[in-house]
Amino acid sequence: MASYEYDLVITNGICVTAADIASYDIAVKDEKIVLLAPSGSLAQADAEKIIDAEGGYVTPGGVDCHVHLEEPAMFGKGSSSDTYETGTRSAVAGGCTTIVGFAPQQKKEPSLLKALADTHAKAKGNSYCDYGFHMMVGNPSLEALSELKTLSENEGITSLKIYMTYAALQIRDDQILSVLLEARSNRMLTMIHAENGDVLNWLTDQLESQGLVAPKYHSTSRPPILEAEATNRAIALSSLIANTPILLVHVSDPGATLRIRQAQTAGQPVFAETCPQYLFLTRDDLDAPVFEGAKCVCSPPPRDKASQDAIWTGLRNGTFTVLSSDHCPFNYNDAEKGKMTCITAENPVGKFREIPNGIPGIETRLPLVFSSGRLALAKFVEVVATNPAKLYGMYPRKGSLIPGVSDADIVVWYPEGRRDITITNEILHHATDYTPFEGRQVGNWPRFTILRGKVVWDRDNGGVVGKKTFGKFLKRGASSLDRIWETVEEQGAFDVAAL
Amino acid sequence: MASYEYDLVITNGICVTAADIASYDIAVKDEKIVLLAPSGSLAQADAEKIIDAEGGYVTPGGVDCHVHLEEPAMFGKGSSSDTYETGTRSAVAGGCTTIVGFAPQQKKEPSLLKALADTHAKAKGNSYCDYGFHMMVGNPSLEALSELKTLSENEGITSLKIYMTYAALQIRDDQILSVLLEARSNRMLTMIHAENGDVLNWLTDQLESQGLVAPKYHSTSRPPILEAEATNRAIALSSLIANTPILLVHVSDPGATLRIRQAQTAGQPVFAETCPQYLFLTRDDLDAPVFEGAKCVCSPPPRDKASQDAIWTGLRNGTFTVLSSDHCPFNYNDAEKGKMTCITAENPVGKFREIPNGIPGIETRLPLVFSSGRLALAKFVEVVATNPAKLYGMYPRKGSLIPGVSDADIVVWYPEGRRDITITNEILHHATDYTPFEGRQVGNWPRFTILRGKVVWDRDNGGVVGKKTFGKFLKRGASSLDRIWETVEEQGAFDVAAL
Amino acid sequence: MASYEYDLVITNGICVTAADIASYDIAVKDEKIVLLAPSGSLAQADAEKIIDAEGGYVTPGGVDCHVHLEEPAMFGKGSSSDTYETGTRSAVAGGCTTIVGFAPQQKKEPSLLKALADTHAKAKGNSYCDYGFHMMVGNPSLEALSELKTLSENEGITSLKIYMTYAALQIRDDQILSVLLEARSNRMLTMIHAENGDVLNWLTDQLESQGLVAPKYHSTSRPPILEAEATNRAIALSSLIANTPILLVHVSDPGATLRIRQAQTAGQPVFAETCPQYLFLTRDDLDAPVFEGAKCVCSPPPRDKASQDAIWTGLRNGTFTVLSSDHCPFNYNDAEKGKMTCITAENPVGKFREIPNGIPGIETRLPLVFSSGRLALAKFVEVVATNPAKLYGMYPRKGSLIPGVSDADIVVWYPEGRRDITITNEILHHATDYTPFEGRQVGNWPRFTILRGKVVWDRDNGGVVGKKTFGKFLKRGASSLDRIWETVEEQGAFDVAAL
Amino acid sequence: MASYEYDLVITNGICVTAADIASYDIAVKDEKIVLLAPSGSLAQADAEKIIDAEGGYVTPGGVDCHVHLEEPAMFGKGSSSDTYETGTRSAVAGGCTTIVGFAPQQKKEPSLLKALADTHAKAKGNSYCDYGFHMMVGNPSLEALSELKTLSENEGITSLKIYMTYAALQIRDDQILSVLLEARSNRMLTMIHAENGDVLNWLTDQLESQGLVAPKYHSTSRPPILEAEATNRAIALSSLIANTPILLVHVSDPGATLRIRQAQTAGQPVFAETCPQYLFLTRDDLDAPVFEGAKCVCSPPPRDKASQDAIWTGLRNGTFTVLSSDHCPFNYNDAEKGKMTCITAENPVGKFREIPNGIPGIETRLPLVFSSGRLALAKFVEVVATNPAKLYGMYPRKGSLIPGVSDADIVVWYPEGRRDITITNEILHHATDYTPFEGRQVGNWPRFTILRGKVVWDRDNGGVVGKKTFGKFLKRGASSLDRIWETVEEQGAFDVAAL
Repeated sequence: MASYEYDLVITNGICVTAADIASYDIAVKDEKIVLLAPSGSLAQADAEKIIDAEGGYVTPGGVDCHVHLEEPAMFGKGSSSDTYETGTRSAVAGGCTTIVGFAPQQKKEPSLLKALADTHAKAKGNSYCDYGFHMMVGNPSLEALSELKTLSENEGITSLKIYMTYAALQIRDDQILSVLLEARSNRMLTMIHAENGDVLNWLTDQLESQGLVAPKYHSTSRPPILEAEATNRAIALSSLIANTPILLVHVSDPGATLRIRQAQTAGQPVFAETCPQYLFLTRDDLDAPVFEGAKCVCSPPPRDKASQDAIWTGLRNGTFTVLSSDHCPFNYNDAEKGKMTCITAENPVGKFREIPNGIPGIETRLPLVFSSGRLALAKFVEVVATNPAKLYGMYPRKGSLIPGVSDADIVVWYPEGRRDITITNEILHHATDYTPFEGRQVGNWPRFTILRGKVVWDRDNGGVVGKKTFGKFLKRGASSLDRIWETVEEQGAFDVAAL
Repeated sequence: MASYEYDLVITNGICVTAADIASYDIAVKDEKIVLLAPSGSLAQADAEKIIDAEGGYVTPGGVDCHVHLEEPAMFGKGSSSDTYETGTRSAVAGGCTTIVGFAPQQKKEPSLLKALADTHAKAKGNSYCDYGFHMMVGNPSLEALSELKTLSENEGITSLKIYMTYAALQIRDDQILSVLLEARSNRMLTMIHAENGDVLNWLTDQLESQGLVAPKYHSTSRPPILEAEATNRAIALSSLIANTPILLVHVSDPGATLRIRQAQTAGQPVFAETCPQYLFLTRDDLDAPVFEGAKCVCSPPPRDKASQDAIWTGLRNGTFTVLSSDHCPFNYNDAEKGKMTCITAENPVGKFREIPNGIPGIETRLPLVFSSGRLALAKFVEVVATNPAKLYGMYPRKGSLIPGVSDADIVVWYPEGRRDITITNEILHHATDYTPFEGRQVGNWPRFTILRGKVVWDRDNGGVVGKKTFGKFLKRGASSLDRIWETVEEQGAFDVAAL
Repeated sequence: MASYEYDLVITNGICVTAADIASYDIAVKDEKIVLLAPSGSLAQADAEKIIDAEGGYVTPGGVDCHVHLEEPAMFGKGSSSDTYETGTRSAVAGGCTTIVGFAPQQKKEPSLLKALADTHAKAKGNSYCDYGFHMMVGNPSLEALSELKTLSENEGITSLKIYMTYAALQIRDDQILSVLLEARSNRMLTMIHAENGDVLNWLTDQLESQGLVAPKYHSTSRPPILEAEATNRAIALSSLIANTPILLVHVSDPGATLRIRQAQTAGQPVFAETCPQYLFLTRDDLDAPVFEGAKCVCSPPPRDKASQDAIWTGLRNGTFTVLSSDHCPFNYNDAEKGKMTCITAENPVGKFREIPNGIPGIETRLPLVFSSGRLALAKFVEVVATNPAKLYGMYPRKGSLIPGVSDADIVVWYPEGRRDITITNEILHHATDYTPFEGRQVGNWPRFTILRGKVVWDRDNGGVVGKKTFGKFLKRGASSLDRIWETVEEQGAFDVAAL
Repeated sequence: MASYEYDLVITNGICVTAADIASYDIAVKDEKIVLLAPSGSLAQADAEKIIDAEGGYVTPGGVDCHVHLEEPAMFGKGSSSDTYETGTRSAVAGGCTTIVGFAPQQKKEPSLLKALADTHAKAKGNSYCDYGFHMMVGNPSLEALSELKTLSENEGITSLKIYMTYAALQIRDDQILSVLLEARSNRMLTMIHAENGDVLNWLTDQLESQGLVAPKYHSTSRPPILEAEATNRAIALSSLIANTPILLVHVSDPGATLRIRQAQTAGQPVFAETCPQYLFLTRDDLDAPVFEGAKCVCSPPPRDKASQDAIWTGLRNGTFTVLSSDHCPFNYNDAEKGKMTCITAENPVGKFREIPNGIPGIETRLPLVFSSGRLALAKFVEVVATNPAKLYGMYPRKGSLIPGVSDADIVVWYPEGRRDITITNEILHHATDYTPFEGRQVGNWPRFTILRGKVVWDRDNGGVVGKKTFGKFLKRGASSLDRIWETVEEQGAFDVAAL
C-alpha cells in the first residue's frame, strides 16, 4: 500500500490563480493540495505520480455553475440530450471538475424538496465530477418558499433560479419579490433569466402570422431590448427588497450589461454571468443554410459583433463575475427529441418557436476562452473557477489552490505552442450530435484534468480515465463573494414600512 | 339685432402665447378671434362688450386633457364626485375652456364604441366648457382594437389611455404592444399610466399584513422606483413598435423623468405630462392627523421636496409637454361614496388600499402654476393650453390666439399685485367637499373666462355666468405636435421581421 | 403724401411663428406690424402695397447672430471677404433682416470701447439690414472688464464672445472665470468657442511633422473629443460662477451635444448654437480633389453622417436654442487674401494650418433649413428668428409678428412646390467667390424679404431692392429667453466663500 | 553557521492574498517565500525562527507607491519633514515593506537623469524598506523626454508623474500629450495629479481678496468640480494618444470617480488611486479651531461624508486599482519649515495658499483600512499590496506570497479582538509632529513586519528592529496589471493621421 509522501506532484508548471501567475510546484495528498513549493523543487519528490507540466499552465479545475442535465424541454417535443453521466464526462474532458446543475420544480409541483430528491436520484453515482444543484423555482408557492430554510441549512442548496420568460416557468414581478424576500432571509442567491416573456411571445405570434418561422427568426423574436428591459426590472425588484443579491444569468446584450454596470457603480449587489456563445457566436450563425441555424438556437440568442466586443469588455472590467457554459444540449438530427422535432408535415421548414432552446458547451468553455488571447489568465481563472466557487458557496474548497484547504482539482494545459486543436464534435464527449463551435481552432486544451488528486482526463493516454462514481455531491454554504451577506446584514432586514 | 363690428374686445392686456408676451388688443366676432391690434387701439371699438384688462395678463383658455368625470371608482366603494356639469363648472371658474375626459371601457365590455356612447350621454348638454374624450381601454380585445379606425376617423377620438396598474384596468406588456401597433396605424396617441401594478399589490399586501393601513402608507406602497421601472418598460415597448408615440401621464418621480429625458435626447417620440400635485404637495401631506391624509391620496402619490424641484426643472427644460390636473375627485367626508368609505367597523382607521385614488384640481391648476413665479409665462401657456391642444389634435382651434382661426377662448387675469387669494374649498365650484390645496395663497386668479367669445366666468360679477348647455363636443384630429405623425410615417410601418 | 391706412399688407399667407402656424393676414404701418386679421380679410385693404402670398409661408425675418464681417483673419494671410455692405446684402437676399456681428478686440488692445468704435465706423451706413454687435474679447484686461458695465448699460452690447482656441484670441480658464464673473454682474451673455487650442496645436504640429498638410487634415487636427472636452470645461466654469449663463457656439459633435444636454437636464443655464455646416456638410467634403476641400475648412470642422443626425435630433428636442450661419467667408481663388494664400512655393499643396478658417453661409442658412423637411416650421422659426431675438435682447421688436410691437421684418416664401432652386455661387450676393453648398437643391427660397415694412429683397423683380443705408444699429437689452437673468438673480450673487 | 531548513516559519495564521483567504503556514528561506503548507504543519519545522500567528491574519507586506520623502515644498517656505530614513522607518512600523517615492525634476532642470541621481543619493543606505522611484516630470523638455528610454530600459524607472496644477510643476495639455506619447513608446505608466490649476489659483485670489485665508478655505479654493474637470480632460488626452494608460492619483471626488468609471466601462486603460484621507477625513476637519485645520491641508482636500461613501464604493467595485498614502508630511508646529511658516506678522492667522500641502500617512494607511470593516480582506490586500506591485512592475516579487518567487515580505496581524489601539502621534515613527488621525481607534495593527524574511518591526519586542541599510532599490519592469501593455500593443502605435 501507499507509503508515498504525496499522492501526486505537479512540477514545472506555471500556476495561475485568480490573483497570481508564477511558476511553482504543487503536491497533493488525500485529495487535497498540501504543498506549494518552488518550481522544480518537487521534481524528485516521493510521490505516487509526478506530472511534469513542461512549462505549461496549471489552473484550478473549472467550476461550471450553469449546466442543464436530464431536464425536460420547456417547449417543443425534445428533451435534453445529456444525462449526468454524459454531461459530466464531457465536463472533465474540457477541464471542468465541478458543476452545479438544476433541480427543476415544475409548475404543478408545489414542493421543492420533492424536485430535489428527483434530481439527486438522477445524479447520484452518475457523475464524473463533483456537483451541486441550484433550485429551479417554477412555482413559488407558500409551501415551496417555506422549504428554502431547509434547503439552505440542511441540504446545501444555497441558490435558486427564476425565469421572467418561458410559459412553463415564467413568474410575475410580485412572485419574484416573494422569492427575493425569502431568499434574502435564507442567504440564498437568486439567479434570474431576464427576458420579457410576454413581449417575446407577442413578437413570435407576429412572426408566425407572417410565416416567418425559420431558425433565424428566433433571434428576431428576442431583440436585445427585451433583455435590457427585463434586466432593469430585475434590478429594480432587487433594490426594492433592500438590495437583495441577484445574479443575471447569460447576459448577451450591451444594454443589459450597461444597466448592470450602473447598479454595480452604485454599490448594489447585482452580479452577472455571461457565456461563450456571446463571445464566439453571432446572430448570423442562426442564419446558416437549410436548418443548420437551429444549432445555435439558445436564449438569449447570440447578438452582433459589436455586442461580442462589449461582452469581452465587460469580462475584462469586472462587470461579469462568472463565465458559465449554460450547457443545455438538444440533439440536432433527431426527430424524436432533438432540434428537428419541430420539422413536421405542417412545418416542413421547422418552426423556431418549437426548436428546443439551448446548446452544448460544457466541454468547450475553457479551451475557447483560455486560448482566446482576450483575457488575462488570472482573470480567466477568476471567472471560470474562483468566482463561481465563491459566488455559490464552494470556496475555498473549490476554485483555488490553497494548501491544506483546497481540493486538488487541477487542470494541466499543454505548453504554449504545443497544440493547435480544431474543435469537431468527434473529439467531444457529450451525448449530443453537434457542437455550435464545429471547425473552430483553439490554441490549447486541458492535457490533464485532476479531480481531488485523481487524474480523470488524460488527453494523450486514455482520454476520460475517471469513473462516473467518483463525483460527489457538494453541500454548498452561503456565497462568500465580496462579503455579500455581511453587507446584506449590515443593511438590516427588509422593512416595507421604510420604503 | 347686433350690428356691432365685434362681439367682444379685450383691450389693454398683456397677451401671452406659447411663444410671445406683449401688449396688444384682441377682437372677437362669431366665436372666433378676428383681430389682433396694437394695445389700446381697440379701446373705443364698435363692440358689444369691451373688457379693459387694466394691464393684466391675457392668455388662451386653459386646456385640461386629463380629467375624470362621472367615472366609476376603480376600487373601494366610492364613485367620482363630479359630474360633467359640476366638473366643467369648476373648470371655467379656474380659467379652463376645454377639457378632455375619458370614455371608460370596462374589462367586461368588448366594445369601445359602446363605452363612447355611454359617455356622450353623460356629457351632452351638461358641460360649461368644450370637451372631448380619450378612450380608456380596459380590454384591448380584437373587437375593441378593430374599432380604433372608426374612433379616429369618424368619431374624433384620437387618443387612448392604458394602465400598467389597477386590477380593473391593468393590461400586460403583450397587450400594450397590440394597442400600440393599432394606435400607430390609426394615428392615435397612447397615454400610459406607468406604475408596476403587480409590485404595488405585493407591497400593499405586505403593509396590510403588518397592520400598516393608514393613508400615509399609500405612498409607501408605491415607491418611486415602481414608476421609473414601468416608465422604462413603456418606453421599451414604444421603441419596439418602431417608435410609436406615447405619453407618460402624471409623472412624479425624478427617475422616471430622467428616463423620459433620455428617450427624448435620443429622438424618440416619448412625451410626458405632470400635474400640480407633484409641484405643490409632498409625501408629508399624506401623513396629516387623523384621516386627513386621505385627501391627498392619488396615484402616483406626491413625492418629496427634491422630487418637486426636479419636476419643476423638467417643466422648464421641456421634458414635460403638458401640465394637466388629473382631476379625479372623491368626497372626503362621505361614507357612501367618498374617501371615508374605507373606514368600516373592521377598519376603524381606514385602509389605504380602499381609499379612492384621486384628488380634485381642475379649478386650481391654472392659478397655482400661473402665480408660482417658477415658470416663464410663455412656458406656462405652452404647457397648460397650446401643447395640450396640439398634442391632442385640437390646434389651432384651441390653445392659441390666432385671428380667424382660433376659438375665442380667453382668460383675463387680474393686474399684477391686485389680488392675493387664499384657496379654500368655499371658493371652488366642484361638487367635492375638500381641496388638497386648502389654505394656499395664490397671487392671481382668472378674472374673466371667455369661451368662444362668451364670458362664462366673471369673478367679480356673478361668478359662473355661462350655461351648462354651451359646451360643445370636440371632434379631434390627429396630434400635430412636433410633426409626430409625419415623423412616424417617414420611419415607415412597423416591420417585425426587421427587428 | 400717403393717406393709406396701411403701408403694406400681406394677404393669403400661412403665417408661422415659434408657436403657431395658421393662415392670416398681416398689416404694416410705420415700420411696425399693426394688425393680424383673418386670412383674406385684408386682401382689399387700403394699403400702399399688397402682397398676395398665394398660400406661401410667411415667417418673421431671419435673425442671424453669428456673423463675421470685415474682421482680420486670425491666422494665415487672408482677411474676411465680406464687408458690412456685401454681407448684409447677402443676408437680405437670404431672408435675414437682422444680424449681430462682432466688435473684435485684439490682444494688444486693452479697451473694448475702442474696438466697438472701430466696428461702428465700418457698419454705419453700410448695412442692408438691422445690426448689432457682440464684443469679441481677446484680452480680458482689467480695463476691458471694467467697460462691460458701460457696454451693457449705455451701448446696447449685451453679449460677448471668448475663445478657448486660436493663438490670437485664446484665453485661459482663469481668465474665463473673470469674464464670466463680470458678465454675470452686467447681465451679459457669454458666447464660448469651445475647442482645446493647446491640443489642436500639438496635433497640427504632429501632422505637419509628417507632411500631412492637405485641407482634409484640418479635420484630423480637430477631432470631436477636443470639442467635447472644452465644452465640458466651459460648463464646469459656468457652474463654478454660480451658474452663469453661457452659450456654446457652433456645436458640431454629438459628445459635446450630450454634455450640453446633461447640463440642461440638470437645469443649468447652458445654451447652444449649431450651424448649417454641421447639418449639410461632412468631413468627406474636406477631402475634395485638388485644393477644393479648403472651401469647407471651418472650425469646428464638419463631422460624419452620424454626427449630422445627432445635431438634427438636438435641434428637434430643444438642445440647440439657436441656429446661426457663422458666416466667416474667405475667398477661395485669391492668393492675396483667400484660402489659397497658404499655397506658396514652400507649400505647393497648401498647408491647412494657414488656410483661413470659415465659410460663407449668411444667405443660404434659411433656404437650406426651411426646405430640409427635417424641422417643424414653428421650430424653424424659433431657432432662426425668435430665439436669437430673445437670447440676445432684441425681442419682441425682432423675431416675432406682434401687432404694435414687432418691427415689420417678414419673409414671404414661395408657395410650396413652386420653386426648386439649385444653389450656385452665381445666385448669391456675398463678395465671396464660392459657396460650400454649390449644387445643392433647395425646395424654396425667400420671395420677398421685408425690413421694417420695406421690401428689401424681391426675388422676381429686382433682387436686392433695399439700400445699404437702411439698416439700423440695434441697442440690445439683456437676454429675455427663459427668464435667464431672473433665475440668475434668484440664485443670488456669486459667493466664492460658499463653494 | 545556520543549518536550519528554513530561516523563518509563520504558522497558525489566516493568510490573505488578493484572491484567497485561508489558513496555511508559510516557510521562508534566503529572503524568499519557499513553502506554503497546511496550517500547523510547519509548527515544528526546522527553522531559525518560528512565529506563531495565533490565528491572526497574515498578509503580504504593504506596497505604498505614493510617498513623498525629502522633497522640496512646492510652495510656502516649508520642506518635507521626512527623510528616506524616517519615512521608511515609519513605513515598516505600519506594515509597509515597499515604497515608491519620487525623483523630482525641477522646472529649471532639463534632465531627468540628473534628478534621478540626486534622489538615489538621498535614499541609498537610508531605507528601512525596499524602494523605487517614479520620475516626477516638471519640465517635459525634449531632453527629458529623450531620457525616458534609458530610464525605462536601464534604470528601472517605469512610471512618471505629471501635474495639472501647482505653478512649480503644472504642465499644459499639449505638454501632457508629448509626455503620454513618449511614455507609451517606453511602456511607462503616467500618473496624473488632476486638478485645474488655473482655476484654483483664481479662486484663491478671490478668497484672499476677501481676506478669507484660514486653513478651511483651502478646501473652498479647490471645489470638487476642479478635480472632475481635470480628470475628464486627462482621460480625453489619454484617449487621443490611442488610449495610453494613465493613473489618476489621489481621487477624492465622486464626480471624478464616475468619470473614471465611465472610461473603464468603455474599456479604456484608465486607472485610479485613492488614499485614506478621502476615506477617514472630511472637509470639516479643515475647520478645526485655531490653526489646527492646517493639519489636514492636502490636495485634493478631504470632501464631505457622502463623498467618503462614494470612495468606499469605488474601492469595493474595482474603480480604484490602488490605495496609497500620498505621504507628504510637513511639520505643524515649526516656523522654519512646517505648516506654520505661513503664519507671519502680515498674516497672523496664516494664509492657506502658503500652507505646505500634504499630510503624513505612511504608517497609518494599513491599520486604518484593515480594521475599517468596510473592505473584504482580499480586496484590502489587492489594493494595498498586490495591485500596486503589478501596476508598477514589481510583481510577482512584491505584493504576493508565491513560493520560490515572492520576496518574503509579510505582515502578521494581531489575532482579532486582541488589540484596540488609539492612534496618537506618540506611537508613530515618522519625523513629523502630528498625525491627522490623532485619537482614532483602530482594531488592529501590524504585529510583525517582515522584509525579505527579516523581522523589521516587532511591535511587542523592540519596535523597529530593522536597519536603515537593509532596504534595497528596486529596478522595476513595465506594468503587468491587466495586460496593460499587451493591450496597448495590440492596438498599435499612435497614428495621428488616423484621428
